[in-house]
Amino acid sequence: MSFGFAPVPGVDEAARARARARQARLTKPTGALGRLEDLSIWLAGVYGACPPPAPARPRVVVFAGDHGVAVAGVSAYPQEVTAQMVANFVAGGAAVNVLANQLGAGVRVADLSVATELRALDLPAEVTKWHVRAGSGRIDVDDALSREQAEQAIDAGAQIADLEIDAGADLLIPGDMGIGNTTPAATLIGALTGNDAGTVTGRGTGIDDAALDRKRAVVAAALTRAWGLTTDPVGLLSAVGGADIAAMAGFLAQAAVRRTPVVLDGVVSGAAALLARQLAPGAAAWWVAGHRSVEPAHTAALDALDLHPLVDLDLRLGEGTGALLALPLLTAAANTLAQMATFDEAHVSDRG
Amino acid sequence: MSFGFAPVPGVDEAARARARARQARLTKPTGALGRLEDLSIWLAGVYGACPPPAPARPRVVVFAGDHGVAVAGVSAYPQEVTAQMVANFVAGGAAVNVLANQLGAGVRVADLSVATELRALDLPAEVTKWHVRAGSGRIDVDDALSREQAEQAIDAGAQIADLEIDAGADLLIPGDMGIGNTTPAATLIGALTGNDAGTVTGRGTGIDDAALDRKRAVVAAALTRAWGLTTDPVGLLSAVGGADIAAMAGFLAQAAVRRTPVVLDGVVSGAAALLARQLAPGAAAWWVAGHRSVEPAHTAALDALDLHPLVDLDLRLGEGTGALLALPLLTAAANTLAQMATFDEAHVSDRG
Repeated sequence: MSFGFAPVPGVDEAARARARARQARLTKPTGALGRLEDLSIWLAGVYGACPPPAPARPRVVVFAGDHGVAVAGVSAYPQEVTAQMVANFVAGGAAVNVLANQLGAGVRVADLSVATELRALDLPAEVTKWHVRAGSGRIDVDDALSREQAEQAIDAGAQIADLEIDAGADLLIPGDMGIGNTTPAATLIGALTGNDAGTVTGRGTGIDDAALDRKRAVVAAALTRAWGLTTDPVGLLSAVGGADIAAMAGFLAQAAVRRTPVVLDGVVSGAAALLARQLAPGAAAWWVAGHRSVEPAHTAALDALDLHPLVDLDLRLGEGTGALLALPLLTAAANTLAQMATFDEAHVSDRG
Repeated sequence: MSFGFAPVPGVDEAARARARARQARLTKPTGALGRLEDLSIWLAGVYGACPPPAPARPRVVVFAGDHGVAVAGVSAYPQEVTAQMVANFVAGGAAVNVLANQLGAGVRVADLSVATELRALDLPAEVTKWHVRAGSGRIDVDDALSREQAEQAIDAGAQIADLEIDAGADLLIPGDMGIGNTTPAATLIGALTGNDAGTVTGRGTGIDDAALDRKRAVVAAALTRAWGLTTDPVGLLSAVGGADIAAMAGFLAQAAVRRTPVVLDGVVSGAAALLARQLAPGAAAWWVAGHRSVEPAHTAALDALDLHPLVDLDLRLGEGTGALLALPLLTAAANTLAQMATFDEAHVSDRG
């Protein structure tokens, strides 16, 4: 099942080889820039150029949605916060806005499945037009979505990727907002990596021990509902996902089809990434991991994706914030490869 | 022994308390920005304001010097590279230049003890005026410096800190350049943290196993020469340090005296920091660790300083490069605290 996604092109191996060779001629000990060197080679591959440009028009898309499991007491915050935060994003007052402004990125917010009435907030149509349903279903006892709704959400995410890329985005960041969304994320990751509820369930927004016990029970019940669906991404998203995560998976898959690099964010994007590479095999070559969240499921997802986070600062906010913090590292990787003098140019002796 | 440094003032605890309280009112789960929240509180303390400004005029000072141990085959590069790289810094072709340009920092280069004749390179007097001697001594068999030379170098570093701060620097970064300089750095850290040569000796510029064995033997011999000097920073720098590291220690001590925050870099700055806090007790409150080098002695130094690196990307270049990569994180910490909406401002519900 590939849901109609076009084949994912490979990255430019010749540009990667040129980048690797150029790294060895720059005025520094071989390998001394550590993971910045690997990152410069990745940038050469995804941009098909050596030296590669630094990302010039990065865009964050925040996928907002509510989750029926919120009624099971799995979050420290009430469900209406999802809609309130959508308004906060539009007003520019959230962490993702502050960091995007600092780091030269734009922000789009898309309501896939916010439960609270958003029309009263007078939000722009470009936010609300993607709405699939009011809250995804309670995944411990019911499906999150119908199969048709899952496909609609995946398609919405792919359309948003196309819109962003057609408007000039040269790097995309998936962000998330939704009270309760780490519960389906942990469930999806548990199902796709073979980990149990005890391993993948974390404290999300900062829940106490009693709420963590409740959340583990919800994830365990949802994992039993995921049986047999681990090679059927649409079925899995319908059973234990959500419209927001389905849209993010479609967004990640289509970005790779369109040769556009992505910096992944936290645990929700980790879940979406595992599904996106089922929808669009080969997509992971177009991604780097921006950061490591404190959510245990995120580490399980990164291990399964064989991605190594660039930033590890105990963030657990989502919204795209962890990925944004990695942007200066991408620029540093591109700039050092492009602008440092070589041994010959600087008349510096190479190793004996 | 405090070498005439004035007392180090404390950071502003009231501003720290205000920052901590403000973090709890921002529109995000409590603690969700992880270490950025701690960093914002540190910035409030060192700048004495809440919200604190982002650093506006960061400056890197690269302390350059040669080391007699280079003749023992402890580096992968020939000694003339030190002088060649000083010229590369002045010409703007090194990694520190590229990253400083990207991140809005200025760079000063100071020759404390370069061995090769630099006058032929026609370098500006502001680079060469700090020269104490041509190469520090071979620390496995001889002193690095006389006691007078160590004091002269410490004083040079303190003078450079004063010059930078008087010219408007609001954040300082110590950089290093010197073939062989990880050998005295490892020795100083071993002596001051009680670790042996096997624990603290690393591959520096990327030496092979045979060179690593030679380097371990040099560090072991130098550590025996350090006995009895661990509470005498001038004596220790004379015996097993170097003019570049002594100057960096004076620079770090005087920066704290002048209430100026510092982002530490790699293993050489770790060694200098351990000495600076002996020269100026309390100085460490004015520092954050920019990154963790792959050099094992750096981790030993960070543990002893109780500092936790912000960036951990397997860099081992020095020059201030690892510290520069942390600057956007400081700005992000300041900006989120200053610019994010509070729950009240954004009409977002706080936890129940």
